[in-house]
Amino acid sequence: MLGCVQPAVTSRVLASVIDFRPIAAVLGVLLAVLGTTMMIPALVDVLAGEDDFIIYAATAAITVFVGLSLWLAGRTGEVELLGLRQAFILTTLSWVLLSLFAAIPFMWSETRLSFADAYFEAMSGLTTTGATVISNLDDRPPGILIWRAFLHWYGGIGIIVFAMAFLPMLQIGGMQLFRAESSDKSEKVLPRAAQLAKGILGTYVALTFICGLAYMLAGMDAFDAVAHAMATISTGGFSTHDASIGFFHSPAIEYVAIVFMITGSLPFLLYVRVLAGDFSRLFANAEVRLFLGLAAVFTLISMFEQVRGGIAEGETALRHALFNVVSLMSTTGFVTVDFTDWGPPTDALYFILLFLGGCTGSTSGGMKMFRIAILGSALVQHLKRIVYPSGVFPVRYGGAPIDDSVVASVLSFGFLYLASFAVISIALNWFGLDLVTALSGAITAIGNVGPGIGPHIGPAANFAGLPDSVIWILSFGMLLGRLELFTVLVLFLPSFWRR
Amino acid sequence: MLGCVQPAVTSRVLASVIDFRPIAAVLGVLLAVLGTTMMIPALVDVLAGEDDFIIYAATAAITVFVGLSLWLAGRTGEVELLGLRQAFILTTLSWVLLSLFAAIPFMWSETRLSFADAYFEAMSGLTTTGATVISNLDDRPPGILIWRAFLHWYGGIGIIVFAMAFLPMLQIGGMQLFRAESSDKSEKVLPRAAQLAKGILGTYVALTFICGLAYMLAGMDAFDAVAHAMATISTGGFSTHDASIGFFHSPAIEYVAIVFMITGSLPFLLYVRVLAGDFSRLFANAEVRLFLGLAAVFTLISMFEQVRGGIAEGETALRHALFNVVSLMSTTGFVTVDFTDWGPPTDALYFILLFLGGCTGSTSGGMKMFRIAILGSALVQHLKRIVYPSGVFPVRYGGAPIDDSVVASVLSFGFLYLASFAVISIALNWFGLDLVTALSGAITAIGNVGPGIGPHIGPAANFAGLPDSVIWILSFGMLLGRLELFTVLVLFLPSFWRR
Ligand SMILES: [K+]
Ligand SMILES: [K+]
Repeated sequence: MLGCVQPAVTSRVLASVIDFRPIAAVLGVLLAVLGTTMMIPALVDVLAGEDDFIIYAATAAITVFVGLSLWLAGRTGEVELLGLRQAFILTTLSWVLLSLFAAIPFMWSETRLSFADAYFEAMSGLTTTGATVISNLDDRPPGILIWRAFLHWYGGIGIIVFAMAFLPMLQIGGMQLFRAESSDKSEKVLPRAAQLAKGILGTYVALTFICGLAYMLAGMDAFDAVAHAMATISTGGFSTHDASIGFFHSPAIEYVAIVFMITGSLPFLLYVRVLAGDFSRLFANAEVRLFLGLAAVFTLISMFEQVRGGIAEGETALRHALFNVVSLMSTTGFVTVDFTDWGPPTDALYFILLFLGGCTGSTSGGMKMFRIAILGSALVQHLKRIVYPSGVFPVRYGGAPIDDSVVASVLSFGFLYLASFAVISIALNWFGLDLVTALSGAITAIGNVGPGIGPHIGPAANFAGLPDSVIWILSFGMLLGRLELFTVLVLFLPSFWRR
Repeated sequence: MLGCVQPAVTSRVLASVIDFRPIAAVLGVLLAVLGTTMMIPALVDVLAGEDDFIIYAATAAITVFVGLSLWLAGRTGEVELLGLRQAFILTTLSWVLLSLFAAIPFMWSETRLSFADAYFEAMSGLTTTGATVISNLDDRPPGILIWRAFLHWYGGIGIIVFAMAFLPMLQIGGMQLFRAESSDKSEKVLPRAAQLAKGILGTYVALTFICGLAYMLAGMDAFDAVAHAMATISTGGFSTHDASIGFFHSPAIEYVAIVFMITGSLPFLLYVRVLAGDFSRLFANAEVRLFLGLAAVFTLISMFEQVRGGIAEGETALRHALFNVVSLMSTTGFVTVDFTDWGPPTDALYFILLFLGGCTGSTSGGMKMFRIAILGSALVQHLKRIVYPSGVFPVRYGGAPIDDSVVASVLSFGFLYLASFAVISIALNWFGLDLVTALSGAITAIGNVGPGIGPHIGPAANFAGLPDSVIWILSFGMLLGRLELFTVLVLFLPSFWRR
């Protein structure tokens, strides 16, 4: 490519050699942390008398060793001055590489997954998707269950830090809107990430602790409470039982899940402010209001449909409606009842919910509330501009007019989101899935929700037994959606790598 | 609404009372023309000895009478100075009102359709969709068959004039890009429309004539040749046989159909230039090149899939592939074989094809080639801008950089197209259609293609027997898609009607 005559002068002037050392250093630290925490499932399996403990210990040693080597190799690089392209590579590589090491226990322990399935399970955890290829969860050693819970808990804090520290700088999908929020205009991504991580980690741990306590009070044993608290706050949705939350047959547990799935879907930065005594900020937030408003509307519709269809009534209908709507909107993907038996209108309803997602800077996936709001406003203003070409119709968000470049970013994101959904659906259909399974599989992967629709990957089933090609496409879809599409896709630009 | 304190000062200042007289006058003329042409099926049924001739004569009288009354009521208005909002109302009302009168023969003649079904059939004709609720076509009187053929032939010329004269002025979905092409910057929509209609009508009639002749040479009888020529050039796709083009079992007829479906999908203004001796313009056009290129690629894929699946080989595989790809990309919707038996990869392929459409200023529907090209370029440039925030990356179309406002229009259109598809799919599913039928029904309506996918509305079936709610939603979808979404949607803006 070098030296060939092309009109891409601008990008060539701007680009320079990418220094991989700071990337290696940060990846090394992340791997070392991941490896260290593998001692938790090891410990749990020792206590339970399971042989798998040795697998975790061995994998921990390998992971920590590779992590430290990477850190040593890279630490001479100037980590503080991480550039834009390095930030993109680091982010995507973090999820790709950590999934690789996180997958090892799934292959070597008694679950004996193939490499494709193990990588899927790890990626599903670290992207907080919670789609699983492991059946008979109830009979598995506790180590593997706590390892899955830990993976999405780790992915959840990772994504909050990524969304708060990286995305606004990277101007991805309209996230530059949230740049002002930080009152720190520094271009140095990493110091800011480290500082944010510290601030949010405390809240994250505290909320998980409170959630676990609430589950115990509602009747879970300590182990299930810990695992489900991690799955709930991270909106991951891995359960320790095949029947998910439905296993417990407990309205109290379902209400606890509802409350903390919502907690996981709201902007975590707000909690830091709420803890500082500023409660009003929580409900003044435009995304929070839209999320709660939409959840209320969809719950009423779903409740009405259940009553009309003679499926349930009263508190039961309300609870099922609330649980399913919040589970899908928060992109947790917990299941209590198999709603696929409820007939066509419910299919359609849940298909919409798979697209929405929660708020920015939370652990939830999907398109996110602020984009839904901006897309809505942009279309209305566009219609007005068509009718009155000389009028001025600014797109507004939370009452304030927003910049055209943000609108363009959000429109690009909106279109690309739907286009990625289409392309991945088609790819899944191509490799043999029927259309409903392909469509719902694509959106549940990109939206990081978990369950799909239909007999194969619906609420009552899991992703076991799908062909490897499908499993790899779904893993890629989860990565793509979790990193807001653009972070991954820029790496496919030839000009990204050009000197 | 009037007088209430609102921040919408701009729109109120710009808006004024809408003068409906010029709208009524133009609608009157269009109705009178429609009514007069109803004498054609009347004549055909007289010759065939069918009783239905009296129905057409009666409907013709009613339609011409209403048309002349409207024209008399409105002719005092200054038609020459048709404003922007009047143009929107006129366009949508043309299709809504003409469908109403065109539907009468379907209710009163021996087909005895319900009002919902008759309106659907008329709208399907005038929007060149070609989805039908009439079974046993082979045994129907010739009058009804020629009436259906005439409807989409009428709709086809209507949409070309609309796209060339109205849309660029209305700045809809990026169509302002084609404003320069006309080298007439006048804001007076109607005189321009009349002038364009005259120029293009000749070409349209000539191409239909040549197509009919070719069909006869390939073995069709005169009646079938006329009906299918009208269906082909208008990319409408109504046939005189339930088995569509498949009825003839003639490769020659299939190749004629392929050639003229492509003809119907290219910009008609180019034919005027080609006739003036400027052949090179045809293949220099960016949309034409993209259309032919994509058709070639998809044909090769489809051919490969047939050979791989052992369905067909050699010339048969090529012909089937070419026919199906061109039929769907041109949004004609002719059918030769039921490709739904070909298994998952073909489903996916045809699902993509339902979205694409042909070129601007042709009779085809769908998203259109220039938007596909601009969306592709916009996404790549957006990715580059993310990586190099200080670089300059203009979106290009046909080699030339295009304005940001056009890009924003196209992005809005692209997102709204996919969103309309989603909303209509969900509405169809809500009213009881299974997911595949709902999804393919929605896109085949919005894209004005015709057949969907699945056992109910697939290539081997038709739209008969669907519930009225579904039929009305599909009729609305056809109108929405045919008028490029925005033309219809602006009418739902409260500020459109505000003084
Ligand atoms: K999830
Ligand atoms: K059609």
